[in-house]
Amino acid sequence: MPGNTFGTLFRVTTWGESHGPALGAIIDGCPPNLSLTEKDIQNELDRRKPGQNDVGTARKEGDKVKILSGIFNGKTLGTPISLIIENKDQRSRDYSKIKDLYRPGHADYSFDLKYGVRDYRGGGRSSGRETVGRVMAGAIAKKYLKQGWKTEITGYTTQVGPIKAQKFEKSFIEKSSLRCADPNQSKKMEEYVLGAKKDGDSVGGIAEFRVKNTPPALGEPVFDKLQADLGKALFSIATVKGVEFGKGFESALLKGSENNDELTTKAGQITTKTNNAGGIYGGISIGTDLILKTAIKPASSIIKKQQSVNNKGKSVDVQVEGRHDACILPRFIPVAESMIALVLIDHALRQRALEDNN
Amino acid sequence: MPGNTFGTLFRVTTWGESHGPALGAIIDGCPPNLSLTEKDIQNELDRRKPGQNDVGTARKEGDKVKILSGIFNGKTLGTPISLIIENKDQRSRDYSKIKDLYRPGHADYSFDLKYGVRDYRGGGRSSGRETVGRVMAGAIAKKYLKQGWKTEITGYTTQVGPIKAQKFEKSFIEKSSLRCADPNQSKKMEEYVLGAKKDGDSVGGIAEFRVKNTPPALGEPVFDKLQADLGKALFSIATVKGVEFGKGFESALLKGSENNDELTTKAGQITTKTNNAGGIYGGISIGTDLILKTAIKPASSIIKKQQSVNNKGKSVDVQVEGRHDACILPRFIPVAESMIALVLIDHALRQRALEDNN
Amino acid sequence: MPGNTFGTLFRVTTWGESHGPALGAIIDGCPPNLSLTEKDIQNELDRRKPGQNDVGTARKEGDKVKILSGIFNGKTLGTPISLIIENKDQRSRDYSKIKDLYRPGHADYSFDLKYGVRDYRGGGRSSGRETVGRVMAGAIAKKYLKQGWKTEITGYTTQVGPIKAQKFEKSFIEKSSLRCADPNQSKKMEEYVLGAKKDGDSVGGIAEFRVKNTPPALGEPVFDKLQADLGKALFSIATVKGVEFGKGFESALLKGSENNDELTTKAGQITTKTNNAGGIYGGISIGTDLILKTAIKPASSIIKKQQSVNNKGKSVDVQVEGRHDACILPRFIPVAESMIALVLIDHALRQRALEDNN
Amino acid sequence: MPGNTFGTLFRVTTWGESHGPALGAIIDGCPPNLSLTEKDIQNELDRRKPGQNDVGTARKEGDKVKILSGIFNGKTLGTPISLIIENKDQRSRDYSKIKDLYRPGHADYSFDLKYGVRDYRGGGRSSGRETVGRVMAGAIAKKYLKQGWKTEITGYTTQVGPIKAQKFEKSFIEKSSLRCADPNQSKKMEEYVLGAKKDGDSVGGIAEFRVKNTPPALGEPVFDKLQADLGKALFSIATVKGVEFGKGFESALLKGSENNDELTTKAGQITTKTNNAGGIYGGISIGTDLILKTAIKPASSIIKKQQSVNNKGKSVDVQVEGRHDACILPRFIPVAESMIALVLIDHALRQRALEDNN
Repeated sequence: MPGNTFGTLFRVTTWGESHGPALGAIIDGCPPNLSLTEKDIQNELDRRKPGQNDVGTARKEGDKVKILSGIFNGKTLGTPISLIIENKDQRSRDYSKIKDLYRPGHADYSFDLKYGVRDYRGGGRSSGRETVGRVMAGAIAKKYLKQGWKTEITGYTTQVGPIKAQKFEKSFIEKSSLRCADPNQSKKMEEYVLGAKKDGDSVGGIAEFRVKNTPPALGEPVFDKLQADLGKALFSIATVKGVEFGKGFESALLKGSENNDELTTKAGQITTKTNNAGGIYGGISIGTDLILKTAIKPASSIIKKQQSVNNKGKSVDVQVEGRHDACILPRFIPVAESMIALVLIDHALRQRALEDNN
Repeated sequence: MPGNTFGTLFRVTTWGESHGPALGAIIDGCPPNLSLTEKDIQNELDRRKPGQNDVGTARKEGDKVKILSGIFNGKTLGTPISLIIENKDQRSRDYSKIKDLYRPGHADYSFDLKYGVRDYRGGGRSSGRETVGRVMAGAIAKKYLKQGWKTEITGYTTQVGPIKAQKFEKSFIEKSSLRCADPNQSKKMEEYVLGAKKDGDSVGGIAEFRVKNTPPALGEPVFDKLQADLGKALFSIATVKGVEFGKGFESALLKGSENNDELTTKAGQITTKTNNAGGIYGGISIGTDLILKTAIKPASSIIKKQQSVNNKGKSVDVQVEGRHDACILPRFIPVAESMIALVLIDHALRQRALEDNN
Repeated sequence: MPGNTFGTLFRVTTWGESHGPALGAIIDGCPPNLSLTEKDIQNELDRRKPGQNDVGTARKEGDKVKILSGIFNGKTLGTPISLIIENKDQRSRDYSKIKDLYRPGHADYSFDLKYGVRDYRGGGRSSGRETVGRVMAGAIAKKYLKQGWKTEITGYTTQVGPIKAQKFEKSFIEKSSLRCADPNQSKKMEEYVLGAKKDGDSVGGIAEFRVKNTPPALGEPVFDKLQADLGKALFSIATVKGVEFGKGFESALLKGSENNDELTTKAGQITTKTNNAGGIYGGISIGTDLILKTAIKPASSIIKKQQSVNNKGKSVDVQVEGRHDACILPRFIPVAESMIALVLIDHALRQRALEDNN
Repeated sequence: MPGNTFGTLFRVTTWGESHGPALGAIIDGCPPNLSLTEKDIQNELDRRKPGQNDVGTARKEGDKVKILSGIFNGKTLGTPISLIIENKDQRSRDYSKIKDLYRPGHADYSFDLKYGVRDYRGGGRSSGRETVGRVMAGAIAKKYLKQGWKTEITGYTTQVGPIKAQKFEKSFIEKSSLRCADPNQSKKMEEYVLGAKKDGDSVGGIAEFRVKNTPPALGEPVFDKLQADLGKALFSIATVKGVEFGKGFESALLKGSENNDELTTKAGQITTKTNNAGGIYGGISIGTDLILKTAIKPASSIIKKQQSVNNKGKSVDVQVEGRHDACILPRFIPVAESMIALVLIDHALRQRALEDNN
């Protein structure tokens, strides 16, 4: 069963190879009458684009979205929204050196194993470039959530290699080259990344996400619990190696009496005193903040020499040429925010179907 | 959209409230001609059942599976397999004390918020008792995987509170009250659990899972990557607060040159020298071991007094009476193994659909 | 991909072999807080049951529904509703004569071809007995539709062999042995059926369905148009060989100027002057009556001698023993009404998800 | 739930408004390593295109397909195939006359009712132009089926208004302006159509479809029977008002002994003596020819004056200007063939998942 569609009621299908003529996304199920322009989408795309600073790749991709369907007179029609980005910069390079080679950490071998064929130019479908489709769809989801519930999804880097953020200045996030909310530590993180880059290496890290004004009552037990669909959404991004909600792995150390979030009433509204759970109980949001963290592996593409094999199983040395992201975290954050938004809007529509408004 | 079905080609639907007349599972999509008896399923159910030892609840549930359809003359028919467990012990208790109460850490409030109604007896649908359906379905998946690929899924406790396993004796797992593979640390873990139990409290922990003879080429990029569907499967179990693959959160600390798994050839077969990724590349298994970890929160049901509110928002004290699991890990492990098995068999059937055997 | 689940938001899964221990249905996605008793379901089951009169089989099946989950204190919980019918009358017959035999018109050969195994007792999963699950689920759908929109679905026989109904007395339908709304023609139809029965033969016919108070705005272009999902629903009943909406095959004879339904206004409400389309435009209901017809083949089980082959391909004579329905129409009608109800409720919930009620 | 995706394993999503910048289709789940060029797809598109002769519209649409992803070096990659047709001829017309108007037989009113907004230019998403996506996807399905099973799907007009074909010359079909296999009657049909056209009117008709070398064992009881999914596929085309398999509505007149297809053996292969069922038994193909018929209503767009209402409910006269198809049958046939091909390939992949080839 093919795996390029995400969501059930707000359904996103993405397509495109890294070096093909174009990449795109279809959104089927966006409710009608939402105001939507290319600029709404472009803003989020620009947060993801390469070449923003030194920690990322120096490649410039002038990713410009075009809306091909589903919008009329500035409003969504309720029909499929087709979004496309043309690949401007398809230089005809010589790929003969890499086409038979399996790069460590990449999907080269696994794609050959699975499909018996692969577009080896820039990773083809397994390239991180695939995530443009997610970001474009996520931009629409974010707009809808903001309009309906004032929902706000904020991601930021909390750790790069061994360096951890120590404070949270929200307004600094988009100024930091690493989308870190701590100005001091952001600087140290940047130095750490540039050091690795100089060595032809890459670094991993951790990002945290908080959702304010989460729509309440989202999540469908027993299998489509909100954390289950968020977990899937985040692990579907190739670079993610760990996901945790609320106290996460730390909750293994706690007693029930320390970890349970006691309930209370604030301004006539039931809520919790603490938020160790990350905002989800029995798989369902209650309107408190969602809190989750993701661990990101160091990017697989490094210039440092590594050993590997080719498609005949023969030993080869590999040096991945090109302009790579030494730390993918700042560009990962808008992608992950998009996936979170897609899960929330999908569940918000699912919840509506249950509600009798007659 | 309802959330009680898991999988796409090997599709499991579970049903049943904790204190209703029965619970069950339907498996639709099990291939025909698999030998299957109630004993195959009962064996796995017995690994999950309560009352096995002191760390778990003292409740005895004589969960006996009955096969109601889909099997004829000891073989699967390719038609839906209906499995049922009758609730023998439905004592008519007095629930008037708890029916308006929201227990901390539980789904009482969130279910009321979502559905406007809830079966408050023993948690109803949000009870951990729901997982019997997963284990029954998982038993079939395990049998099919074993027969087809000799696949073996092994789960074991690696941490309880602050106590960590230090060695791995596979044969000890099923002897340990905590399903811990380290005999010495298992003893310490048990003491730790019993100490908390004496205080009317509960403890969390970490379990690790390894899959030997993973079927290769499983996983459907870009959204249904193998780790994405495994992540969803595990986070759909209410007690799970974190999931990581391979090095997981530790990979945040590594450089690309340390973390990438170099490829090599063994016995004519391409494989990796290390397994930092946990066996998945670009979302696809390559036949090496799957390795993943889950963080388990301390059980929410504790006898210790907690503060909360009732369904009018009024402050109340809560003491959750009854016989609870002070540490849910040993009973969680067969449930998680089952979910892993369900993901693997589903993706194995999905992969078949791609393969032209003509 | 398994095929025993119907619907997307109101999702029904059925299970059970004709001569197995039980048959059942799971409804996942029924909205919470609907009053529901076993009697609501039993009433519809009784309309389908065999042994009601001479045109049907003389078999008595005391099909009694039991609700096993999803209902608490007489209300739906929003969790899966498990419904079961136990097979009381599992006499151990001798099946050695028929187990290797392929009956004409039946699924014996096709099941063997597909699955390589089959439960030959009474047709197993391919038996019409499977439809009890549809009727049980349909009863819930009907109740919900009636409560929300006053929707009423009425099916009746319009033709048996060459005999056609000439008038419509709604109140007569449930009195007629053939569920025919024309008292005179019903009598002639009955004679025709009994004549065929005496010859060990069976007869086909046509049934019409009308839906009053159809919820408006149902249907999801371009593939899930309302008529598309209704067409699937009806063709999923084994006995249906033709389906038409409104003028149906007759519209082939008409000009556009004759066939188009002109729009007008009645009581301030836009509607159509005629209803040649059967109530659906561009795949979407507008609140006018749905009108559709189904052609039913004569039942395949006949006592008359037929030629066939066994599973070695050897020629054999077949006489299908037992008590068969000489005309299946009166028992087909509640099944088809149920399928129509399932499509309407599913699309009603789908439509809700689109609607912003904030 | 959005309705623009068809199929489960071979999954097609279409998008695009009639007068938007482009229309397209994504095929997710096409197996890898199929040779595929734009020409393969263009050939089928050309069979559907307008302006082929006098019975159809005089509009010229130079629909040229472009492949944007999923193909590399002439082979499918197993990744999503994105196909696009740009709308060259987007003249800025004055739509002020029609934007508030509800044309009889069209989806103008129902779209407004459902979505509260609509692209009124040329029908927007409800235009028959939407079917280009189906034909492009169907071209791939046909190629795969032909290569794997030598499957051949042939559609032809059997009736236009009251004029019926009386013989079958397969080689004449593509020469006939109506895709009719009877040269004499084709001529009469053409005259009939041109007569109606002169009156500013349109005509309906009937098309038959035969599938040679149907892959055996396709269809998933109980709901996804092969005829159920074919029925849905055909009724999803807006113009279809009736579908029947084999004897169809005529089987209502037959006795079981006349209608049942007796089994026999030919060349060592089990088959049937007759084919009254249309090639499907118990919902499953057995490799014999599929036979089905569809009734097509006369096109809704006619120049003749009709009465209707505008979006205020006020009475208005309507004359649908423009260049319309007086008989849509010849252009409908490639669309319907495509939908049949999509059902067959999807079920062929579904059947593979069941088969253990180890």
